[in-house]
Amino acid sequence: MRLRNNPKANDILAQHEDIVVLDGKKHKAKWNELFGTENPIYIEIGMGKGDFIIENALRYPDINFIGIEKFPSVMVGALKKIDQQNLSLPNLKLLKEDAIFLTDIFDKYEVSRIYLNFSDPWPKKRHTKRRLTSPAFLDVYQNILVPNGELILKTDNRSLFEYSLVSFQNYGLYFNDVCLDLHHSEGYEDNIQTEYERKFSPLGPIYQVKTTFRRSENNG
Amino acid sequence: MRLRNNPKANDILAQHEDIVVLDGKKHKAKWNELFGTENPIYIEIGMGKGDFIIENALRYPDINFIGIEKFPSVMVGALKKIDQQNLSLPNLKLLKEDAIFLTDIFDKYEVSRIYLNFSDPWPKKRHTKRRLTSPAFLDVYQNILVPNGELILKTDNRSLFEYSLVSFQNYGLYFNDVCLDLHHSEGYEDNIQTEYERKFSPLGPIYQVKTTFRRSENNG
Repeated sequence: MRLRNNPKANDILAQHEDIVVLDGKKHKAKWNELFGTENPIYIEIGMGKGDFIIENALRYPDINFIGIEKFPSVMVGALKKIDQQNLSLPNLKLLKEDAIFLTDIFDKYEVSRIYLNFSDPWPKKRHTKRRLTSPAFLDVYQNILVPNGELILKTDNRSLFEYSLVSFQNYGLYFNDVCLDLHHSEGYEDNIQTEYERKFSPLGPIYQVKTTFRRSENNG
Repeated sequence: MRLRNNPKANDILAQHEDIVVLDGKKHKAKWNELFGTENPIYIEIGMGKGDFIIENALRYPDINFIGIEKFPSVMVGALKKIDQQNLSLPNLKLLKEDAIFLTDIFDKYEVSRIYLNFSDPWPKKRHTKRRLTSPAFLDVYQNILVPNGELILKTDNRSLFEYSLVSFQNYGLYFNDVCLDLHHSEGYEDNIQTEYERKFSPLGPIYQVKTTFRRSENNG
């Protein structure tokens, strides 16, 4: 996402310590204490301005959600929405972090589901390793997900989706569902849109794949 | 493919015994004798009127091709083209057969590559087992393909493609390449079109996945 720098962003984050987590490390293996419940944790990596994760938190109070974003200026957009709508969301936290460090933030089996929505496609071949669906990131996800935890990718970028299907299969992920035109298919009426999706879905198909990290046969 | 019955179709096939194989069983484990070479064998299941397999046979003389079609009336269309263009194709045979019986026709390791082009989507759920990408057919393909033999699916039917990606992954096929818009992508200039593809590709994307049947770890 292209962004304008907001010089006050870090100050604004610091003023929202009820919902914003600046140092995720200190909650490792203890996120449920922070939420005050043992409910499953779903995270969105690259939450942008937060429409998706906020709507999820409102709709599913028995799930704990963490929206992760590495750019403070972007995260401020989510905070504005929460403030303006005066939302009370005990099951939502916003974490400023880079995805590659998530094993420092979450313990093994601490996360039940990971959403990747409209991730940066990094189209150049030399940037393949930066894509959030490349093997180094899948290693990270595998290390924090529960057994049979889910990874759900949604994007309008055809090249990223083609790359990701191959990357997921090659890594050994199990495919639960593939949809090549999410907005024109039956059975996806519960889809929660991101702000980007609302804007760009009229221009072409939205792709989605739901996958599961399976344990090796030895562990059932 | 919808087809008009041609009451003379079986007679026409019988008159082309140089290229048409009516009883494939008797060539099992001996197809290379029929071709007179040890070249790899590529088959297309559901060749329709044969544009794809004929063009392949012309372009790749060092591969032996077998176009498989269960409807005699359809196969006659391919024969007409070969006759009209006065083609000499020692590396092409046309086989009248149903895909589910291919293990009676080909020995283990006898086929190097299988093409499925614009296969019948069988959209109703109760007809899932008739789709050429369902597990029972994958069993057949695995039984006749060489180690690391390829299965390549091309279709414009979104539902069939979505189903097939999941079916292939669940079966354990390895993905070499996925393309979600074959006619608008770089690197696919060698694509050989079917007659159906020429007609319908302007209406929407052509999907393609290239997969490999891997042997189990024990066999390397």
